[in-house]
Amino acid sequence: MFSPRPIGYARSPYQNTQQVPKGLGAKHDAEGILEILPEFETGLTDIEGFSHLIVLWVFDRAEGFELLGTPPTDNRPHGVFATRSPRRPNPIGLTVVELLRRDGTRLHVRGIDMLDGTPLLDIKPYLSGIPQEKLRRGWLAEAETRKGS
Amino acid sequence: MFSPRPIGYARSPYQNTQQVPKGLGAKHDAEGILEILPEFETGLTDIEGFSHLIVLWVFDRAEGFELLGTPPTDNRPHGVFATRSPRRPNPIGLTVVELLRRDGTRLHVRGIDMLDGTPLLDIKPYLSGIPQEKLRRGWLAEAETRKGS
Repeated sequence: MFSPRPIGYARSPYQNTQQVPKGLGAKHDAEGILEILPEFETGLTDIEGFSHLIVLWVFDRAEGFELLGTPPTDNRPHGVFATRSPRRPNPIGLTVVELLRRDGTRLHVRGIDMLDGTPLLDIKPYLSGIPQEKLRRGWLAEAETRKGS
Repeated sequence: MFSPRPIGYARSPYQNTQQVPKGLGAKHDAEGILEILPEFETGLTDIEGFSHLIVLWVFDRAEGFELLGTPPTDNRPHGVFATRSPRRPNPIGLTVVELLRRDGTRLHVRGIDMLDGTPLLDIKPYLSGIPQEKLRRGWLAEAETRKGS
């Protein structure tokens, strides 16, 4: 395996998890900054050309993991690998953000949902999506149907 | 930070990186198996309902990292965070696969691009994509245009 190291930190409007929009219909349009450490700045070369980025980060305020849990989007328990729960065997979070602009080591982005100060692990260009008509969303679609949303 | 642990291993037709389709127009339709360790099986509950999964894994055969590198898709160097290079500060790979079926702790998937025996870190449901018309793909689109593909 490897020893995770932060490549930078998230600057976000959220100081605690209660402030992060969750659940059905949650909007993730908060703006924030991915502050990359100066030693990794060269790795950002040409990133401006991408409209969306995949950000991997650490759930650094989650403790332990839970294989079965009830997410805020449902009242039934689901396996951790079928949810976005923070309490995972490897506490890695994933967020797709829109890149608004780059200012040196600071990436201004929209769609941030991590807490302020969250350590960042990686940034990858977002290249393509699965066409909507080929996508099945499992229990989440069922939960939405039950709630009539 | 945290200490990464494998949640399972990939069974793939690829024994070395030369066998993995790379570059412009590469097709990723290889089938393989995500073998999850028995201790994490409960975490797979309800995963059958999702058509696509995000798999996080370790580039366990990559050594060190390179902030600027020339990917197989271009003849110009780009920053590591604007590419999918295996030589990253945190050697975490990401693949979106199609879930064909689950057989206990074995997830049969299509679209595998990791090497046989690759340690898996996490599985998350794939929930949505960025609409094609809102997506810009930076240097990759430019490289495609130059190659006329």
